[in-house]
Amino acid sequence: MIKNIINLRDKLEALLLIQENFHNDGKVADYIPALAGVSPKLMGVSVATIDGNVIGAGDHQIPFSIQSISKVFGLVMAMNRLGDELWHRVNMEPSGQPFNSIIQLEWEKGIPRNPVINAGALLVADVLTSHFSASKLAFLTFLRKLAADENIFIDNHVYQSELSHGSRNAAMGYLMKSFGNIEAEIPEVLSHYFTQCSVAMSCQQLASSLLFLANKGIDPKTNNTICSPRDAHRVNAILSTSGMYDQSGEFAFSVGLPAKSGVGGGVVAIVPGYGVICSWSPPLNRFGNSVVGTNLVSDLAEELGLSIYH
Amino acid sequence: MIKNIINLRDKLEALLLIQENFHNDGKVADYIPALAGVSPKLMGVSVATIDGNVIGAGDHQIPFSIQSISKVFGLVMAMNRLGDELWHRVNMEPSGQPFNSIIQLEWEKGIPRNPVINAGALLVADVLTSHFSASKLAFLTFLRKLAADENIFIDNHVYQSELSHGSRNAAMGYLMKSFGNIEAEIPEVLSHYFTQCSVAMSCQQLASSLLFLANKGIDPKTNNTICSPRDAHRVNAILSTSGMYDQSGEFAFSVGLPAKSGVGGGVVAIVPGYGVICSWSPPLNRFGNSVVGTNLVSDLAEELGLSIYH
Amino acid sequence: MIKNIINLRDKLEALLLIQENFHNDGKVADYIPALAGVSPKLMGVSVATIDGNVIGAGDHQIPFSIQSISKVFGLVMAMNRLGDELWHRVNMEPSGQPFNSIIQLEWEKGIPRNPVINAGALLVADVLTSHFSASKLAFLTFLRKLAADENIFIDNHVYQSELSHGSRNAAMGYLMKSFGNIEAEIPEVLSHYFTQCSVAMSCQQLASSLLFLANKGIDPKTNNTICSPRDAHRVNAILSTSGMYDQSGEFAFSVGLPAKSGVGGGVVAIVPGYGVICSWSPPLNRFGNSVVGTNLVSDLAEELGLSIYH
Amino acid sequence: MIKNIINLRDKLEALLLIQENFHNDGKVADYIPALAGVSPKLMGVSVATIDGNVIGAGDHQIPFSIQSISKVFGLVMAMNRLGDELWHRVNMEPSGQPFNSIIQLEWEKGIPRNPVINAGALLVADVLTSHFSASKLAFLTFLRKLAADENIFIDNHVYQSELSHGSRNAAMGYLMKSFGNIEAEIPEVLSHYFTQCSVAMSCQQLASSLLFLANKGIDPKTNNTICSPRDAHRVNAILSTSGMYDQSGEFAFSVGLPAKSGVGGGVVAIVPGYGVICSWSPPLNRFGNSVVGTNLVSDLAEELGLSIYH
Repeated sequence: MIKNIINLRDKLEALLLIQENFHNDGKVADYIPALAGVSPKLMGVSVATIDGNVIGAGDHQIPFSIQSISKVFGLVMAMNRLGDELWHRVNMEPSGQPFNSIIQLEWEKGIPRNPVINAGALLVADVLTSHFSASKLAFLTFLRKLAADENIFIDNHVYQSELSHGSRNAAMGYLMKSFGNIEAEIPEVLSHYFTQCSVAMSCQQLASSLLFLANKGIDPKTNNTICSPRDAHRVNAILSTSGMYDQSGEFAFSVGLPAKSGVGGGVVAIVPGYGVICSWSPPLNRFGNSVVGTNLVSDLAEELGLSIYH
Repeated sequence: MIKNIINLRDKLEALLLIQENFHNDGKVADYIPALAGVSPKLMGVSVATIDGNVIGAGDHQIPFSIQSISKVFGLVMAMNRLGDELWHRVNMEPSGQPFNSIIQLEWEKGIPRNPVINAGALLVADVLTSHFSASKLAFLTFLRKLAADENIFIDNHVYQSELSHGSRNAAMGYLMKSFGNIEAEIPEVLSHYFTQCSVAMSCQQLASSLLFLANKGIDPKTNNTICSPRDAHRVNAILSTSGMYDQSGEFAFSVGLPAKSGVGGGVVAIVPGYGVICSWSPPLNRFGNSVVGTNLVSDLAEELGLSIYH
Repeated sequence: MIKNIINLRDKLEALLLIQENFHNDGKVADYIPALAGVSPKLMGVSVATIDGNVIGAGDHQIPFSIQSISKVFGLVMAMNRLGDELWHRVNMEPSGQPFNSIIQLEWEKGIPRNPVINAGALLVADVLTSHFSASKLAFLTFLRKLAADENIFIDNHVYQSELSHGSRNAAMGYLMKSFGNIEAEIPEVLSHYFTQCSVAMSCQQLASSLLFLANKGIDPKTNNTICSPRDAHRVNAILSTSGMYDQSGEFAFSVGLPAKSGVGGGVVAIVPGYGVICSWSPPLNRFGNSVVGTNLVSDLAEELGLSIYH
Repeated sequence: MIKNIINLRDKLEALLLIQENFHNDGKVADYIPALAGVSPKLMGVSVATIDGNVIGAGDHQIPFSIQSISKVFGLVMAMNRLGDELWHRVNMEPSGQPFNSIIQLEWEKGIPRNPVINAGALLVADVLTSHFSASKLAFLTFLRKLAADENIFIDNHVYQSELSHGSRNAAMGYLMKSFGNIEAEIPEVLSHYFTQCSVAMSCQQLASSLLFLANKGIDPKTNNTICSPRDAHRVNAILSTSGMYDQSGEFAFSVGLPAKSGVGGGVVAIVPGYGVICSWSPPLNRFGNSVVGTNLVSDLAEELGLSIYH
C-alpha cells in the first residue's frame, strides 16, 4: 500500500513534467479581470482515494477559483433539499450547445437542459436562495465540512469582478423568471451564484471533498452520508454526459470518467469505487476546459485503467 | 454457475411479468406501414455474458426490425475501415436535439454531432457505400459473423416501406452533400442506410452479437478481435451520452449503461466486463424508445447492480 | 371639401358598424393585469389628413395604452439625437420572429434586427436614457407637442403593472448589455421603456401626432420640421416591413400601408402624402394585433384606394 | 415627352458613368462555374414606362442569367393557377434569414416563409410542375408573351451547372416533402426550378415584361390582363418586404421600391403607376445583390422621387 502511494506520487510528478509547456496551447480566462491575472504556469494534481489517501504533486495545495466546479456542490445541496421536485424545474439531458447559450432556454420554455450549464446552475442557485435562510453561508459550511477544512474561503476580489460582468447570467435568470421558473429575485440569485463561483480551493481540498461521489454518497473520511446512493449515481451520470461543457462527448470518448471543469482551470473527475482526481492549470481550450488539467486526468485515467466504459 | 443461470432466467421471467400491461403506455411506430402492423404485446429479453451464457425469456427468439440499433454495427465497420479520419467528418458530442433534427446540421456546417443520430448514421452509410464494393452484403455478413448465425436476414417489406418514406433522411443527406461531407450519390447512401435499418434480429442474436463491446473489442465466443479496445471504449462512450435519442441523459441518470434503442422496439445495453442485455417490445414513448424495453433494462440493471456510475 | 369630410365621417361610422361583433374573434392582452381589465367592446377610428382635417368615429377620443406604438415616437427621437450612428447599433431588417424573441438577438450578437421589435425598442430606450437628462419627460413633451395637446399623460397603473412583469424585457436588455450594446443601467432603460409604453392617447391624438410621417417630416399643423424627409422615409419603410409584429408581411400583402400596432389594441397607419389613420379595439389576434383595429384600417385603405403598392 | 425621354437616356448614361469602378466592391457569383465566367465589367440599365417607352443605357440589351428574378414570374403563374389555395402552402412573411436557410423551414414545418426565398420558389415550382403538363415550356411561353419577344431562351450551360450543384435545394425540397408540402417528385421540381433560373434575358426585356405589376395587373403594351389588381398588389407587397434577400429591409429603408434581385447580377424594381427599372452588373455584395445594380436603382429612384414611402 505504502509502495503504491509512493508510486502514485512519482507518477503524478512524471505526468506534470510531460505537461510542462502544454499550457501554451491554451489561454487563461479573461472575461473577468480577477481571473485574467493568474499565472498560466501554475499546475497541480491530487488524487484522493476512498481508502483514505490524498496524494498530490505540483501546486496541488494552492487555492484557485473553483468557478463551475461549484455547480456540483450546489446541485447536491439542492437535491438534498428539494428531492425529486428539482427535476420538474431542470432537465438532465446534455445540451449540445455552449454552456451559456440562451437559445435553448427559450426553446425549452425556461427549463434548463441540465444543472451544470449556466442556466441550470442559476436555477439551482434560486433553489438554494429560496430554501436556505443564509444560502451563501450554508454553501461555504457545506464545502468546509466536505473538505474537513475550515480555511476554505470566498475570494471577494473574484466575486466583485463576476458581479460587474454578470449581464449574460442576468439575461438567463430573467428569461427563466419570465417563464415562471425562478422564485427569488434575480439580484439575490446572481449574488448567491457568483459567491459559489468565487470560492477558492486547492486540488487537494477539491479531491478530498468529492470522495462521497465515488463512494455511493458516503464520505469515507467520516462515514457521514452526504447524499443517497441514487443521488450520487445521478450526479455522476450528469457529469458524464454534460460536465465538460460542449466537449463532454469527446471527454467521455477519450477519457471515460464523470468530470466537471471550471474556467479557473480546475478539473475534477470521479472514479466510482476508487476515488477522485483533481487537476489544475489556468490556460483553457476553446471549450473553456483547462488544456493541461484535461491532459493530466486523461493520462492518469489511461495509465491506471480507470475508465468506466471498459 | 448453473444455479446463477437458472436464477437469471427466473429473474427475467419475473421482470417480464411485471411489464405485462406497460406496453399500453406507448405507441407502436407508425411512420412506416411495415412497422405499424407489429403486435404491441410481443416482449422479450436476453442476457449474453462474456463467460458464454445466453439466457432469454419471452419472445427473445423472434426477429424484429433492428432499426437504429444497426447504427452501432455500421459505426464499428466504419471505424475499422476509416480509422481516425472518420472523426473529421462526424463529431462525438451529444446533440441536445431530436434524432432527426436538421437545424443542428445546418449550424454545424454539415458535420453531424455524433454517429448515432440520423445524420451521423447517414454519414457512416456514405463511408460504407464508398469504401466497400458491396456494402449491404458486407454489412449483413458482419452481423451474421458477430451473431454466429447465418439466418439473419433483411426484411424487404420494411426496406421498401422505408424507401418510400425517406424524404427527411434524403433532406439530411443532401444538406450534408451541399457542405461537401458526402462522397457517394444520395440514393445509394439511402439505399444502404435503409437496408441496415431493415435487418431483422432477435433479442438473443443482438445480445450475442454485441458481446465484443463488453469485452474490449474481442468476441468472447470466438476470441476474434472485432475492433480495438480503444474503439470499443469509444462506442460505449457515445452510446452512454447519445444512444437513447433525446432521452439519453435521463437513461444515464436512472439506469447508467451504454445503450442503443431502435424504433422497432429493441434496446441493447452494454455492461462492460459482464455482457449485453437486449430487450424488445414495440410500443414507444415520445422519445422513440421502447417503454417496456427501457423498463426491462432499467429493472435488471438495478437488481444486478450493473450501472457504471456507482 | 366639407362634403368629403362629412362623407368620411359617415364612412368611418359605417365601417365601425360592420365590425360590431368581430371583437369576439380576439382576446384582450392579459400579460399585465392593467390591460386585461379594459372593455373589449370599445372601438374607435380617426383619420387626420395633411390638409388639416381630423375626423373620427366611435370611441376615438378615449385614451388607451399606446404600448408599442410608442416605439415610433422613440425611434424618431433617437434618430434626431444620434443620427446615422444609431444604425450601427440596430439593424433595419424584418425579423421573421415573434416580437419578443431572444434567439435572434443571440445569433446576431446583441444587434436587434430592427427598432420596432422589443429588443430594438429597448436599445432606443437606452439611447434616450443616455442622451437626455430627463428622458421620460422629454418623451412626454415630444408627444404633447406633436399632438398639440397638453393633456396626454402616463398611466401610472399600467406602468407599475409593466414594471412588475418585465422579466422578459430585462432578459433582452441584459443580453444586449453582455454584448456591449447598452450604455445605461438596465433598470433605468426598462423604466424609460415602460414609461413610453404606458402613455395613454386617443385615436384622435395619435392620428394627429403622426402626420409628419405622411408629410416628409413636417408637421402640417405647425409647419415645424419634426425630422428630415429621409428619416420620415426610413421610418415608413421600417413600419412597412416590420410594424405589425410577425404579421407584417400579411398586412403589406392585404392592406399595403406603413403601420404600427400595440397590444393596447391601437393601430396607426401612415398614408404618405395624405394623412394618418388610427384605429382602436382591445381584443388581439394571435400575433398581438387588434382584430377590429386591423380590419378598420384594411377596409378604409381598400375603399379609399390608399395602398402604396398599387 | 420626347424631351423627357432624351433626358432620361442622358440620366441613365450619367448614372452608369458614376458606377464605373464600383463593380470592384463586389464579387461575381461563383457557386456554379457557368456564372463565375461572366465579365464583372458589364453593366446596363433600362426603364420601361407604362405609357409605352423603354429607355436603356450600357449593356441593356445583353441577355444575362435572370436567376431569382424568375421567382416573380413563377409566382404570378402559380397565383393564376392555384388561386388563394397557394397561400395555405406558402406564407407571405419576411424571413429574417438568408435566402437558402433550412432552419426556418424546419421550425415552420415545411411551410416556406414567402415565395421569393428558395424554399418558397421550390414550392412554386412544385405547383407549376404538378399543374402544367409541360411546365418548362409554359414558363418560357409566359416570359416570351410578357416581353413580346420570341428570342428569350434557356441557357443550357447554366442549367446543367445548376443541376450538378443543386444539393442544397434538393435538401429543402425533400424537407418540404417530408412535411407533405410537395406533390411532385423532387427531381422534377428541381428540374423545373433550375430551368426557370437559367432563362437569359436583357434589362430591356425584363423591364418591359414586368410592366403589368406597375399597372394593376394589365400589360400596358397589349392591354392584356396578366393577373388581378389584387395579385399585382400582393406581388409588390412581397417584393417590398422580401425581394432583396436579407437586405430587403435596408433596400426599403434607403430606396423604397418593390424589387427583386438575382445572383446573375440583375435587379428589377417596380414603380407602381409609373413603370419598371431593370439594372444589371454581375458583382454581388455579401447578401447576393448586385452592387452596381442596387446603386443604379437607388440613384434613379432618388433623382426621380420614385419611392413609395414618401
